Amino acid sequence: MSKEKVVLAYSGGLDTSVCVKWLQTEKNLDVICVCGNVGQEETDLEKKRQKALSLGVLDCKVLDLRDEFSDEYLTHAIAANSMYENKYPLLSALSRPLLAAKLVEVAHEYGATYVAHGCTGKGNDQVRFEAGVLALDPDLKVIAPVREWDLKCRPDEVAYAHEHGIPVPEGANDNPYSIDDNLWGRAIECGHMEDPWNEPLDDAWTMTKSPENTPDTPTYVEIGFEAGKPVSIDGEQMKLSELIIKLNKIAGDNGFGRLDLVEDRLVGLKSRECYEVPAALTLLQAHKALEDLTVEGDVLRAKFALEQQWATTVYNGKWFSPLKAALDAFMDETQKFVTGTVRLKFFKGNLTIVGRKSPYSLYDYGLATYDRDTTFDEKSAAGFIYLDTLSLKTWSKVQGPGSGIA
Amino acid sequence: MSKEKVVLAYSGGLDTSVCVKWLQTEKNLDVICVCGNVGQEETDLEKKRQKALSLGVLDCKVLDLRDEFSDEYLTHAIAANSMYENKYPLLSALSRPLLAAKLVEVAHEYGATYVAHGCTGKGNDQVRFEAGVLALDPDLKVIAPVREWDLKCRPDEVAYAHEHGIPVPEGANDNPYSIDDNLWGRAIECGHMEDPWNEPLDDAWTMTKSPENTPDTPTYVEIGFEAGKPVSIDGEQMKLSELIIKLNKIAGDNGFGRLDLVEDRLVGLKSRECYEVPAALTLLQAHKALEDLTVEGDVLRAKFALEQQWATTVYNGKWFSPLKAALDAFMDETQKFVTGTVRLKFFKGNLTIVGRKSPYSLYDYGLATYDRDTTFDEKSAAGFIYLDTLSLKTWSKVQGPGSGIA
Amino acid sequence: MSKEKVVLAYSGGLDTSVCVKWLQTEKNLDVICVCGNVGQEETDLEKKRQKALSLGVLDCKVLDLRDEFSDEYLTHAIAANSMYENKYPLLSALSRPLLAAKLVEVAHEYGATYVAHGCTGKGNDQVRFEAGVLALDPDLKVIAPVREWDLKCRPDEVAYAHEHGIPVPEGANDNPYSIDDNLWGRAIECGHMEDPWNEPLDDAWTMTKSPENTPDTPTYVEIGFEAGKPVSIDGEQMKLSELIIKLNKIAGDNGFGRLDLVEDRLVGLKSRECYEVPAALTLLQAHKALEDLTVEGDVLRAKFALEQQWATTVYNGKWFSPLKAALDAFMDETQKFVTGTVRLKFFKGNLTIVGRKSPYSLYDYGLATYDRDTTFDEKSAAGFIYLDTLSLKTWSKVQGPGSGIA
Amino acid sequence: MSKEKVVLAYSGGLDTSVCVKWLQTEKNLDVICVCGNVGQEETDLEKKRQKALSLGVLDCKVLDLRDEFSDEYLTHAIAANSMYENKYPLLSALSRPLLAAKLVEVAHEYGATYVAHGCTGKGNDQVRFEAGVLALDPDLKVIAPVREWDLKCRPDEVAYAHEHGIPVPEGANDNPYSIDDNLWGRAIECGHMEDPWNEPLDDAWTMTKSPENTPDTPTYVEIGFEAGKPVSIDGEQMKLSELIIKLNKIAGDNGFGRLDLVEDRLVGLKSRECYEVPAALTLLQAHKALEDLTVEGDVLRAKFALEQQWATTVYNGKWFSPLKAALDAFMDETQKFVTGTVRLKFFKGNLTIVGRKSPYSLYDYGLATYDRDTTFDEKSAAGFIYLDTLSLKTWSKVQGPGSGIA
Repeated sequence: MSKEKVVLAYSGGLDTSVCVKWLQTEKNLDVICVCGNVGQEETDLEKKRQKALSLGVLDCKVLDLRDEFSDEYLTHAIAANSMYENKYPLLSALSRPLLAAKLVEVAHEYGATYVAHGCTGKGNDQVRFEAGVLALDPDLKVIAPVREWDLKCRPDEVAYAHEHGIPVPEGANDNPYSIDDNLWGRAIECGHMEDPWNEPLDDAWTMTKSPENTPDTPTYVEIGFEAGKPVSIDGEQMKLSELIIKLNKIAGDNGFGRLDLVEDRLVGLKSRECYEVPAALTLLQAHKALEDLTVEGDVLRAKFALEQQWATTVYNGKWFSPLKAALDAFMDETQKFVTGTVRLKFFKGNLTIVGRKSPYSLYDYGLATYDRDTTFDEKSAAGFIYLDTLSLKTWSKVQGPGSGIA
Repeated sequence: MSKEKVVLAYSGGLDTSVCVKWLQTEKNLDVICVCGNVGQEETDLEKKRQKALSLGVLDCKVLDLRDEFSDEYLTHAIAANSMYENKYPLLSALSRPLLAAKLVEVAHEYGATYVAHGCTGKGNDQVRFEAGVLALDPDLKVIAPVREWDLKCRPDEVAYAHEHGIPVPEGANDNPYSIDDNLWGRAIECGHMEDPWNEPLDDAWTMTKSPENTPDTPTYVEIGFEAGKPVSIDGEQMKLSELIIKLNKIAGDNGFGRLDLVEDRLVGLKSRECYEVPAALTLLQAHKALEDLTVEGDVLRAKFALEQQWATTVYNGKWFSPLKAALDAFMDETQKFVTGTVRLKFFKGNLTIVGRKSPYSLYDYGLATYDRDTTFDEKSAAGFIYLDTLSLKTWSKVQGPGSGIA
Repeated sequence: MSKEKVVLAYSGGLDTSVCVKWLQTEKNLDVICVCGNVGQEETDLEKKRQKALSLGVLDCKVLDLRDEFSDEYLTHAIAANSMYENKYPLLSALSRPLLAAKLVEVAHEYGATYVAHGCTGKGNDQVRFEAGVLALDPDLKVIAPVREWDLKCRPDEVAYAHEHGIPVPEGANDNPYSIDDNLWGRAIECGHMEDPWNEPLDDAWTMTKSPENTPDTPTYVEIGFEAGKPVSIDGEQMKLSELIIKLNKIAGDNGFGRLDLVEDRLVGLKSRECYEVPAALTLLQAHKALEDLTVEGDVLRAKFALEQQWATTVYNGKWFSPLKAALDAFMDETQKFVTGTVRLKFFKGNLTIVGRKSPYSLYDYGLATYDRDTTFDEKSAAGFIYLDTLSLKTWSKVQGPGSGIA
Repeated sequence: MSKEKVVLAYSGGLDTSVCVKWLQTEKNLDVICVCGNVGQEETDLEKKRQKALSLGVLDCKVLDLRDEFSDEYLTHAIAANSMYENKYPLLSALSRPLLAAKLVEVAHEYGATYVAHGCTGKGNDQVRFEAGVLALDPDLKVIAPVREWDLKCRPDEVAYAHEHGIPVPEGANDNPYSIDDNLWGRAIECGHMEDPWNEPLDDAWTMTKSPENTPDTPTYVEIGFEAGKPVSIDGEQMKLSELIIKLNKIAGDNGFGRLDLVEDRLVGLKSRECYEVPAALTLLQAHKALEDLTVEGDVLRAKFALEQQWATTVYNGKWFSPLKAALDAFMDETQKFVTGTVRLKFFKGNLTIVGRKSPYSLYDYGLATYDRDTTFDEKSAAGFIYLDTLSLKTWSKVQGPGSGIA
C-alpha cells in the first residue's frame, strides 16, 4: 500500500530540509516540496530543487509567482494602503496566503492528505499558512514539524541534519538574523535587535544603502497610477513586478525604506522587527498622495478605519475570508478614479512627495484659493456655522460651560 | 450711552488691523484686542499692542500663552497622536480654541456683547474660533468682518488701510504666502503652491533647513516621557514649552519636519498645504514608538480609530465639546504607563527611532525570542489555530472555496 | 422671452400649493410639478394633478415610483439593516433621494434652471432634497420658498392661499400632526408629542392597531429571502412592493411596528418622533435573524459599524455619494448567501423570531451542541486560551493587578 | 507534606461535584470550593455547602455577591448599553469575571496553586474564567477537568458520581436544558432548541410569563436614573440589586424579556440561544431613551461603535483588561448628565417607552418645534447646505453624475 502524501512549503534552508526528513522518518509520509519564487533575494531555486530531490522527495515544484503575487496580492495591499498598526506595510502576511493556495493546489494534484510548513509556534506565519490552507480546503490536515519535534535550537537541527545526511551549507550557523523576504520587502529579526533599545547594526540591511552612503543630489521619479494600480515610472509603462523591482533599486540606492519598530504579533506578544521596504513604502506614500487628490473627503476618512481592519485581518492570516472579500469590495469601489501621476524626490534616506496631478482631481483652485475674488460664496459660512454649532450651543447652556454647573 | 463692546482676536497684521477700524466704523463698537503668544515666530507683541492702541482700541491685551498651550493643549494632542487624515499633526486647530477661550474671558471681563475674528469664509479657522467661543458662552455674538466686508483682495485692504490711517508695513504685499504658526509648527499656504503639482520653493521654509544644507553626521537625541508627556531631552528635565522650542531647533537644523500634502478642509474642499512641524512630528513619532512598547496590543489597535476621531473633532473646531472630553478620557486612561525613553537619530532630513525602553515595557524577551529553548508553550499553537480558524472552516465548507459553489 | 422654469416637488397639500403660487408670483417662474407615489396613504394623485393644473402650472407629472422605490432603495436599506442611531429604520431619508432624482430628470426634460421643494429650514428633508439634486446635477439651482417667505405659521399660509385663489381643503388646520409616509412607514410629528414626556394619543396612529385591539391568537408568518432580498410570504413569491404592502397589513393588524423616540436631526437639534413602521421593522428583524445564521461572525461584527455609517450617511441626505457607493459595495458582498426562511410570530404588538433556516446556514449542530461526544476537539481550548490570554498575562505582570502597582 | 491546593468554582450541581472528586482523585489536590450568589434562582446555598463538605473539601465558601455584582458590574454594563452583536445584553459574561476575582482572592487566602472550573471546551465561559483569573494573577495555574476527563456525556458523569459516592439528585437527567442565570437574566441552551428552526417550548421559560397569560391592562412604571445608574422605581429609591429583582418581576409578569437568537461564540461557532432578561432589557431600553434625551448627538453616535467594542471585549472574557478600562473611561464621561425619569408601559409582552424627562434634557422645544415663529434662524440653512454639499458638488462634476463619465 502506498504511503500517504504531504505537501511541504519548502524554502531550501535548514529548517525545511530537516522537515523533509522528519516527515519521511517520523510520519512515514511521501513528501512533495513546493518552492515559490515571490521575489526573494536568494533565487537559485533549481539548486534548491536538486537538494530536495536528493533528500528523496516525490517531487519538488518550483513556481515563479512574482506576477501573480504582484497582480493579485500587492494591488489589493496598495488599494487598502496596507499598514499594520499604522506602521508596517505587511510583507510575509502577503506572500503566505499565495503560498498556501499553491500548497492546496499541489495537494489536490497529488491527492495528498497533509500539508506541512516549517514555522515555529511563536510566530504569525504558522497561522497564515494554516488559515490559508484550511479556508481553501478545510478537509486537509496540517502538520507543523517545528512545533512538534524536540530540536530546541539551531545546533540541534544541524546535528539532526548531519545524522540524516542532509547537506548543511557552510556558515549555516553564522547569519545572526532570521530573514523573510519577497518583492515587497525584507523582514529582519533576531540577533542584536532582540533588545529594542539596541540600534540595528549595519550588517542587517541589504536592500537599502545607509543614507550616509547615498548620492549627494536628489533623484526625482514620477509614478503613474491607473485606478489605484501603479503602472509606470517616469512615463514608461511596465508590469507591476518589474516596477517594484526597479523602484526597490531606486529607493534603496537613495537610502529610503528602512523601518525599525515594535509590533504586536497575533499570538499576543510584542516583537521588535526591522524591515526594508523601499518600493512598498514609496508606492504606499505615492498612492495615498494621489488618493488625497482624487478621493472625496468623507470616503477618505471612512477608509482609514477600514484600512486598519484590512491590515489586521491580513496580518492575522485571514486573506481568504468573507471579511477580507467585503473589505476589498469597499476598497475597489474607492479606487476607480485614483488615476494620475505623483512626483517624488529621493534624497539621502528621505522620500518627499513634491507634486501630484490627475484628470480626476477633486482639488478646485477656484474654491481653494484664498484670493477672495472668486465664486465661492463666503457669506454662506455664517449659516453653516449657525447650524454646525447648534448642538454645542444647546449642550453648553444645559450641561456645559454656559450652564454654570460644569 | 456707551457703545457696545467687541473683543477681537488681533494678530497685529493687516487683516486684523483693518478689522479694528471696520468694527469701529461700520458696527460702531468699542474694540478690545487680544493678542496671544502661542510661540509664533514674530513676537514683538508690544509693538503690536502699541499699533492697536494707536487705532483707538479700548484695550489691547497681550497674553503669553505658551505654557498653557503646551500643558493643556499639546499634551492632549500627543496623547491622541493627533494626526488629521493620518498625515497632519494639527496646528492652528490646537491654538484656536485656546485663543477662543481667552476671547471669552476678556469678553466677560469687559462685559462685551461681541467677539470678532479676522478669518475668511473659506477656511477652517472661522469655525474653530466660533465653535470655541459659542461652546464656552453661547450667548456671545460673533462678527466675522472679512466675511462681511467687500474688500475682495489684499490691495483692497491696503487701500482701506491708507484711507483710514492704518499703518501699513513696508512690503505688506510682498510675502507670497499666508502663514500661521505656533510652538507646534508653521502652516504655509498660497502662492506658487496653490497648484498641487508644483514643488514648494525654498523660500517657503523657515523652521527647517533643506536636507542638502544639514550636518554630515547624525545627531542622536533621547527623549524622556512620563505618562505620555515629554519631560526631558538627553536626560535633562525641562518644561514642555522649552522642550518643544529646543526640539524645533534640533530637528529643524537637521532638515526634519516638512510636510507637503493635500487635505480636506471642513468646509468641503481640498486644499494644498505645506507645514513645518519639526518638534511636533518628532514627539509624535517618539510617543508612538513608546506606546508600541508599553501599550497592550488590543488597546493600541482600538486607539487608532479613536485617534482619527479625536483629530477630526479637533480639526473641525470642536475642542470644547462632550465628544472631545469623552475621547480624552479614553486617551488619558491609556497613557498611565507610557513612561520611558526613546532614542532618536536625525540625519539629513531623516528621523529614525533607534531605541526605546521603559520600566513598564510589555516586550518580553523570553516570549519573543525565536531561540526556542524558552518557557513559551509552542504546542499550544495547534489548539489556538484549531479554534481561531473554526469559523473560517465552517464558512469554507458551506459558502466558500470548500463548498464547490463559490 | 419665455420665463425660466422651476421643477417643484409637489405633494398636493397646502405648503406646496402655496409654493406654486409663490414661485409664479415672487420669482416669476414657470412651474412644473412632480408628484411621486412612493406608497403614501393618500394617493388620489389625479386629483392633486388637477389641482396643480388649476393653479396654472406648465405641467404636473404624477409618477408611480413604488417599484423603483422598493427595488432600488429599500433593498439597499435592508441589506444595510438601516437603523439611524440604532433605533429608527429611516423613512423620508429613503424616499427623498428618489424624488430628487425625478426632479432632476424632469428639470432636464423641460430645460429648467431651478428645482424647488416645500421643506422648512429646521428639518432634514431640505438637505436630502438639495444634496440629492446637487449630487446629480451640481449646476441646478435650488429654491426653498418656505425658508424664504414670511409666512410664519399655518394660518398665514391659509390666508395667503385664500388671497391667491388656492383651494384650501376643509379642515386644513385640524390635523394636529405633520405626517410623511411611504411604503416603508409613516412619520408623525408635532402636536401633543412635542413634549417628550407626553405619551402619544391614539389618534396619532393609523397603520397599526393598538395592541389592546388585536387578535387573541398569534399569527405566524414565514418570510423568504434571496441574497438578502425579501421574496416571499408563506412560500408565495411576490414583488417587494406587494410584499411590503401585505406585511404592513399583517404586522399592523397585530399591533406591531410603533416607535416613539428622540432623535438627533442633522441640523443639530433633538426631536421627538413617532413612527409606524410595521413592515420595515419586521423585515429588518427577519433579515438580521437570517444574517445571524448565514453571515460569518467577523463579517457580522464589522458590518455593525458600517451599518451605522450607512444609516447616518443616508439620514444626512448623502444617498448619491461616493461614500454611500463604497458602503453599498461592502454590504452587497455580505448578502450573497443571506438566503433562506425566517419564521415569525405576531401577537398583540409583539414580533418574535421563532425559527430560521438556510441552505447556507453556518450553524453546525455537531460543533455547537453541548452533547460532548462529537468531533469538536475540546482539548484544543487549552492551547487557544494560552495564546488568547498571553497579552493580558504580560500586561498583568508589568502594569496590571499582577504587578503590585496598579 | 501537605498537598497542593485548588480553588474550584462550585455550583453544587453534578458537573462541579464530580470535579471535586476528580481533582482529589486524579490530581491529588486539596479542594476549596467557592460558591457565589449572583442572584440565580436556585439559592439554597447552605445545602450546597454541606454537600461540598460531605465530599471532603477543605472548605466551601458561600458568598453573597449580589450587591457587588449590581454595583460594580451591571452599572458598567448599563452605561455601555451592553448588547453583544447588537442583540444580547450579556449575562454569564458579566458574572464570570466577578467569580474569577473571588477565586483569586480565595486562592491567595489559602495559598492555593491552582484554580479550577467546570466549563467545557466548546463554550465561552472557560475563557471568561481563565482570562479573569490570569489577568488578576498570571502565576496561578488553571485546571479545567471537564476538558481533560473522558466522561463524554451526562450518563457517564452520573456513573462516575455513583462510583465515587457523590449524591445525585433525583431527576438529574430530566431537565433537557442547560441553564445559567443571575440577577441580569437566564440563559437556556440545548434540548429541542438546538435546531434553530424549532420554536422554543413553553417549559423553557421560567422568569417570564407567556404574553397570552398576562394581564389585560397595561402596567406603567417610572424608572429614575442618576448619572446613568437606575436608582428608583415609581419614585421609590432602592439599591440596584433590589430594583433589578423588582423589575424582573414586573416585566416578567407582563411577558416581557424573552430573546431567541443565533449568536457567535468566541470559539468560532454559531450557537442558538434563548434568554430571559426582563429587567436587563427594560433597563437598557430605558437607559438608551434617557441618553437620547441627554447625550449630545456626536457623542451618542460615537458611543455606538464603542458599545459594540465593549460588549465584544466583555463577551470574550476580557473584563479585567486595559482595553475595558479605557472604554469604561469613555463611557463614564458620557454618563454625567444621564439623570432623569423614563416612563414605561408594559402590556402583553410589549415594552414601550412613552415618556422621558431630565433636568439636563438637550431637547429644546423652541428649536425643535415646526411652529415657525421661533428664534431658530431658518435662513441659515441655505448657507449650511451650500457648504455641506460642496464636496459632493465637486465630486459630481469631476467623477460623478455631473461629469458625464460615471
